[in-house]
Amino acid sequence: MTPAALDAADELARFRGEFVVRDPALIYLDGNSLGRLPRRSVARVAGLVEAEWGGRLVRGWGEGWMAAPRRLGAKLARLIGVEAEEVLVADSTSVNLFKLVVAALRARPERRTVVTDDLSFPSDLYVLQGALDLLGGGRRLRVVPSPDGLTVPTGALAAALDADTALVALCHTAFKSSFVYDLAAVTDAARRAGAWTLWDVSHSVGAMPLALGSAAAELAVGCSYKYLNGGPGAPAFLYVRQDLQARLVSPVWGWLGHAAPFEFAPSYTPAAGIDRFLAGTPPVLSMAAIEPALDLVLEAGLERIRAKSVRQTEYLIERWEAELAPQGFALRSPRESARRGSHVSLGHPEGWRINRALIEEMGVLPDFREPDNLRLGVAPLYTTYAELHEAVDRIARVVRDRLYEKYPAERSAIT
Amino acid sequence: MTPAALDAADELARFRGEFVVRDPALIYLDGNSLGRLPRRSVARVAGLVEAEWGGRLVRGWGEGWMAAPRRLGAKLARLIGVEAEEVLVADSTSVNLFKLVVAALRARPERRTVVTDDLSFPSDLYVLQGALDLLGGGRRLRVVPSPDGLTVPTGALAAALDADTALVALCHTAFKSSFVYDLAAVTDAARRAGAWTLWDVSHSVGAMPLALGSAAAELAVGCSYKYLNGGPGAPAFLYVRQDLQARLVSPVWGWLGHAAPFEFAPSYTPAAGIDRFLAGTPPVLSMAAIEPALDLVLEAGLERIRAKSVRQTEYLIERWEAELAPQGFALRSPRESARRGSHVSLGHPEGWRINRALIEEMGVLPDFREPDNLRLGVAPLYTTYAELHEAVDRIARVVRDRLYEKYPAERSAIT
Repeated sequence: MTPAALDAADELARFRGEFVVRDPALIYLDGNSLGRLPRRSVARVAGLVEAEWGGRLVRGWGEGWMAAPRRLGAKLARLIGVEAEEVLVADSTSVNLFKLVVAALRARPERRTVVTDDLSFPSDLYVLQGALDLLGGGRRLRVVPSPDGLTVPTGALAAALDADTALVALCHTAFKSSFVYDLAAVTDAARRAGAWTLWDVSHSVGAMPLALGSAAAELAVGCSYKYLNGGPGAPAFLYVRQDLQARLVSPVWGWLGHAAPFEFAPSYTPAAGIDRFLAGTPPVLSMAAIEPALDLVLEAGLERIRAKSVRQTEYLIERWEAELAPQGFALRSPRESARRGSHVSLGHPEGWRINRALIEEMGVLPDFREPDNLRLGVAPLYTTYAELHEAVDRIARVVRDRLYEKYPAERSAIT
Repeated sequence: MTPAALDAADELARFRGEFVVRDPALIYLDGNSLGRLPRRSVARVAGLVEAEWGGRLVRGWGEGWMAAPRRLGAKLARLIGVEAEEVLVADSTSVNLFKLVVAALRARPERRTVVTDDLSFPSDLYVLQGALDLLGGGRRLRVVPSPDGLTVPTGALAAALDADTALVALCHTAFKSSFVYDLAAVTDAARRAGAWTLWDVSHSVGAMPLALGSAAAELAVGCSYKYLNGGPGAPAFLYVRQDLQARLVSPVWGWLGHAAPFEFAPSYTPAAGIDRFLAGTPPVLSMAAIEPALDLVLEAGLERIRAKSVRQTEYLIERWEAELAPQGFALRSPRESARRGSHVSLGHPEGWRINRALIEEMGVLPDFREPDNLRLGVAPLYTTYAELHEAVDRIARVVRDRLYEKYPAERSAIT
């Protein structure tokens, strides 16, 4: 089928019209880093600023702002397969991860090991390292190495668990290779070892159904600005399984986590439920952009989103095989679609300069991850087959015509 | 002088026009809780959303978003009297307080006491309690009581310090009474006892000059949505004196605090300077609204803002004495202007119901703090003398005509 025919048959095609596309000539393949702007969010943010802040002033807190962490949490809960009262939108992914890791390790001091892998997003590793440094008491991090640099077999992970394992903290989809863990199998292996799991679903949520509830996973965090299109730096979310909420206490005793914040009591009493993981006042403008974006994902449906994501990454891989493998690109993502997220990584010795050329002169916007990975992100709500087809042509041209050679090999800070 | 004459003579009068005033009949006296919307912020946020997120997409990170915590920090530094490289805008006040308290206590384990007072904003007390609970090691909180419920003499505070005091953590302006500490004197007393000071300047910043630098205060945090008009829940700031930055490590090892975040190294190395106190990705929409708001305060000048603030709170107190004291209102703020912030608290046994009546039917928006305090906030950039005059008339009428009696005495959650 031609890309045009594939787009014509796409049951999600109408959703592209829900997004602002200011430069239709730009092929945007970085929705896995920052999702596009939903049209509805433009109006929502303007309304928040002008009518609510401008018009309602401080009354806004009682008219929806204060309830936003739970209201958005309830929508997010549907996207990760858990109950409404198990999720909050608040703070950044790093801060949420910190709160949950510290709370979990303090709740079970008899176990001292945290297991993770070397495919995890480095910020997650840093937060784990910091939490262990803070808590001390002989606690340590065990990093399971990926045997091929792309994937981690469930068996290898399970073999690293023992009676000292308190927590298994993993990124569900690996930021570089796009490898996706079998969430249920790993959670189950951890449970059999007596360990809890903490999933960072940042690179999964909004691109595939997640069944944290049916897997009975204990904890999760994730970000809202990738496939959820919540806006740059939009607040993150956290999940705590209901039966554990009373056992876990956030280390950050902020007033919004208090049982009765507006009584201004002199001593901290954590709220009964998930609210105890709130800390300070939520950034309302950034919260506002998230809600219409979540509604779009809910309308499209995660099953349909995942089906299109798989078809589009398959399509990209077929095109890689035909056009890019001959130009020296290696596939750095799993071929098995069940183990692959919504982006495809391609390695090339000139990856950095190729990425520069694509951005500077080819109208293609992927991203680059050290040492040599070009990440091509598929966002099923707005990525078309025509874009994927054309992007591969342009990538092939950059290499074939050596267009990358005029760009320096030195890295700039932000890519 | 009549209120009209006072307004005519006001050198800051033109700044009211810089703010959105959708309902000119509403007398807004809660700018100490949530500042009004600057007109410039409307355009700035819309531009951020439509042109930057919508048009530049992920490229926005390299075109100003990633630099925002330091860029805004440099402007804030001018408002608190310190150097540009000593301030960051990031996270919430609670999270920033947590980061700095934990970092400070870990840096000097030989001292185990944190001194604070019972006028502090309860969230600050909660964060201190949580940090001490987390760190353990015999650390404890010493809460200096206010002898009159309104103020704390520097001498009383100094008497509570000893060779075990690691940190003196105080709110510079008390959220309820408006009492303002002598920052230089307290910082000096702490230094003589070998203790560091951590000032929460949330209720001061933007309403008066702050000289943290000349006092050589060690640490500070503060919020940007009160007198700074940064928007609901806008990110907060933190200050770490330059010579201490290398000694202190945030407990939250997030990637943006790493020396080289985009190298994705497997281990955490804190950035050399103030950046090490960053954690996760900043909420860019909420950051965007802050910048034009800071510019307005810088243009008006803190000396002029403070001069008007003092004149307006004096004016309110004169009006209280003439009109409200006879109706049973007690002044719950210091009379000495040097020790008073930019709001005036009035106590009345029916304070809660009076506040309801003012909001529901009198077109006056103050706020209420338990047990019986009506807070009247003066925001010199937009509060007029005519508003203050009229507000006092309406408050007197509510009591004189017993208009509050139809409102229930039970508290609702958010006031």
